[in-house]
Amino acid sequence: MTEEPEQTPVEEIEAALDEDAYALDRRTVAGILHAVEADDRERLTELLEPLHAADIADLLEQVDAPDRRRLVALYDKEFDGEILSELDDSVREEVIGLLSPEVLRDSVRELDSDDVVDLLEYLEEPQQEQILGALEDSDRVAVEQALNYPEESAGRLMQREVVAVPEHWSVGETIDFMRARDDLPDQFYHVILVDPRMKPVGHVALGKLMASPRARALSELLEPSFRTIPAEQDEEDVAYAFNQYHLISAPVVDENDRLVGVITIDDAMIVLDEEHEEDIMLLAGVGEGSLSDSVRVTISQRLPWLAVNLATAILASAVIAIFEDTIAGFVALAVLMPIVASMGGNAGTQSLTVAVRAIATRDLTGSNVWRVIRRECLVGLANGVVFAVVMGLIGWVWFDTMMLGVVIAAAMVINLVVAGLAGTVIPVLMERFGVDPALASGTFVTTVTDVVGFFAFLGLAGMVLL
Amino acid sequence: MTEEPEQTPVEEIEAALDEDAYALDRRTVAGILHAVEADDRERLTELLEPLHAADIADLLEQVDAPDRRRLVALYDKEFDGEILSELDDSVREEVIGLLSPEVLRDSVRELDSDDVVDLLEYLEEPQQEQILGALEDSDRVAVEQALNYPEESAGRLMQREVVAVPEHWSVGETIDFMRARDDLPDQFYHVILVDPRMKPVGHVALGKLMASPRARALSELLEPSFRTIPAEQDEEDVAYAFNQYHLISAPVVDENDRLVGVITIDDAMIVLDEEHEEDIMLLAGVGEGSLSDSVRVTISQRLPWLAVNLATAILASAVIAIFEDTIAGFVALAVLMPIVASMGGNAGTQSLTVAVRAIATRDLTGSNVWRVIRRECLVGLANGVVFAVVMGLIGWVWFDTMMLGVVIAAAMVINLVVAGLAGTVIPVLMERFGVDPALASGTFVTTVTDVVGFFAFLGLAGMVLL
Repeated sequence: MTEEPEQTPVEEIEAALDEDAYALDRRTVAGILHAVEADDRERLTELLEPLHAADIADLLEQVDAPDRRRLVALYDKEFDGEILSELDDSVREEVIGLLSPEVLRDSVRELDSDDVVDLLEYLEEPQQEQILGALEDSDRVAVEQALNYPEESAGRLMQREVVAVPEHWSVGETIDFMRARDDLPDQFYHVILVDPRMKPVGHVALGKLMASPRARALSELLEPSFRTIPAEQDEEDVAYAFNQYHLISAPVVDENDRLVGVITIDDAMIVLDEEHEEDIMLLAGVGEGSLSDSVRVTISQRLPWLAVNLATAILASAVIAIFEDTIAGFVALAVLMPIVASMGGNAGTQSLTVAVRAIATRDLTGSNVWRVIRRECLVGLANGVVFAVVMGLIGWVWFDTMMLGVVIAAAMVINLVVAGLAGTVIPVLMERFGVDPALASGTFVTTVTDVVGFFAFLGLAGMVLL
Repeated sequence: MTEEPEQTPVEEIEAALDEDAYALDRRTVAGILHAVEADDRERLTELLEPLHAADIADLLEQVDAPDRRRLVALYDKEFDGEILSELDDSVREEVIGLLSPEVLRDSVRELDSDDVVDLLEYLEEPQQEQILGALEDSDRVAVEQALNYPEESAGRLMQREVVAVPEHWSVGETIDFMRARDDLPDQFYHVILVDPRMKPVGHVALGKLMASPRARALSELLEPSFRTIPAEQDEEDVAYAFNQYHLISAPVVDENDRLVGVITIDDAMIVLDEEHEEDIMLLAGVGEGSLSDSVRVTISQRLPWLAVNLATAILASAVIAIFEDTIAGFVALAVLMPIVASMGGNAGTQSLTVAVRAIATRDLTGSNVWRVIRRECLVGLANGVVFAVVMGLIGWVWFDTMMLGVVIAAAMVINLVVAGLAGTVIPVLMERFGVDPALASGTFVTTVTDVVGFFAFLGLAGMVLL
């Protein structure tokens, strides 16, 4: 940070957020918005020119809707298809609606067919039609074929242009073949070896090919990490495989093991990023939210999760209501009961998060699930005992009632063991019933710890104190 | 899932967890443990042979400590350095301790120098020494040089072997040069163009090189996505750049812009994965936990977070204690008060999670921070009004007291607006003061919503109801 003594706290906050490498800083954004304000197309083009399409997309997401409209209108013919690819779903629909048909056509025609598939996937029918109509015939066929694969499958992720040669070829033959071809894909890293039935049997890295004598057989240069991906496989599994096995590219095969395309690591990295994002958002009960959604969309996204939480909170209140007379007899219980529930909720969230991640990374499996559950209960027991002692003493001293300390200590141990149990068992059961373990598990776990916490604390108090 | 009618519920759960593509299934694990049990080295080697080092590492993490010891002892000389690279930090230390010095030496010598750096980074001093001592001299120098760069920097992530040529070369010159060199790196995807001072000025994809006539100048084939990475840059920023700009490889430069190494996307993908993992774990208050940590380590990891939560829960209780008389006069308040706190906590966590992610992805910047805060408060207000109406009616009907409904409705609106505010302002302030926004923000946010929720609800009730 450059130390400028006259920075106000507000400016310091703004500066801190802009400090990250690669962040679009306020000066750039202000300059662009100024050019838009002044209707100065030349200046706008000049300012956007050095920016990567991904950064222009971020800019469009960060400005508000009126500025976005004016920016897109002014930029007009300079608008690049890549920007559409990079936009968040919510803003993408809006921007496509802002582009004139000719600009949209030109933008889309610049894109590779797999980027068009990615673009189309989450659009409404009429916009899909509009974009498909803008494509040239051969591209349209390719895109429509890709759309025949299931949503979020390897088939939609792959590019169809591959470089494949017979498995018995030599380095020299392969180089000559490649140098003679005039339709090599833009991005490829391996030459795929196929058998006569077009089944991939291995691949050779371009670098290895370069470094080897012409007479060497390709079959001697195979990469050890070779794996094929079924076209129907879920893209989440594809991303896992790339990350786990350090793949750079992998051939995609149909149900007969024939080569139909290739997936490269850059696409897998995007999927990995999206899947993580989804997990975090689901665990927090946000669904698909992003900052570029409108206020109305955001309200409606978060509302259902809050409604579920309200239902479970009322359930916990109903438990408290059972003990209304106990509380009336000893109001200190009302003061202390949220502590037991809160500690249980926190410990449960800890166990839950570890379990959800472990299921996603295949670290929690059928072989170790029972040991993991036992382990989490043990951790809950140990931490429960620690905080039982602390809270028991605090409860005793605060309200000068030893038995109150004993009650809160016992409730703490019970609730933290239950937290460990619920935090692991609930996501495991979600997985068993085919539901994403990250989805709403948090609400279930805290419901359990709230109910058990209130019940144990107030129930014991009713037995012991009154 | 294969339908086997005689599966018990326990087996169904185990099967569901093993169903994910690429998961190590129980049969494989049981077979391996059986071979270990029987001291059958030949069978063990035969079973592990087809597995990728990453899968063997996962296996070692999933079995318990005694099995791990026996497996490593039996596998012995077959043990591969790659497995060490793939292991979780906690288990890695243990396994290194289990290997005989000769096996450790042979394992480590197989690895590339950047993998050795990765291996050493988080080991204790004596184990670091042991591994450095096992390396051949040239490798040791390379590793020690890499360790001079800051922790988690681009300099530690990069490989030092690069393929660089003068910027004015042609395709033919470059191919001849590469084919004449006998020390090309195993993995490389671009030829880097450098000026006479070794400053990278662009790079050409190997595929493009293959597809171009020999006479074509390299400078005509440059990739548009070219970017250099400063060696001191944080690896988190490196991962962001790869993901944002779809880089496949990027040259690393020193403070004089001279080429010192290259980072490839597979390393960036691992960092991206780790950073996400860290964010999820920090948001849940788990720190660095993984399933392979021992029970004792896990207890001590989670304890500090629970202690912080206990302190904040006691703070919330102190607020309740202020209103002890109010509650004694009207016990229904004790029944309903956790609902206000719980809804606030949930709404706050939603805002928080969106804000933490947006800061990480550079979507929340100095240009839009105030709009985002206003937006989150608006969303809180709108959802607050919805749940105020719902909960107002429930409170009124449940306890047959209209004013109780009014009080809980008012408290709900207040707390949900505060939740939106705290959920965004707290992570922004953490960023301002250079703390990871994911760290403990959750505890602060729920402290605010607990305190405000109890205070607003009980305070209003005290004014209105008694």
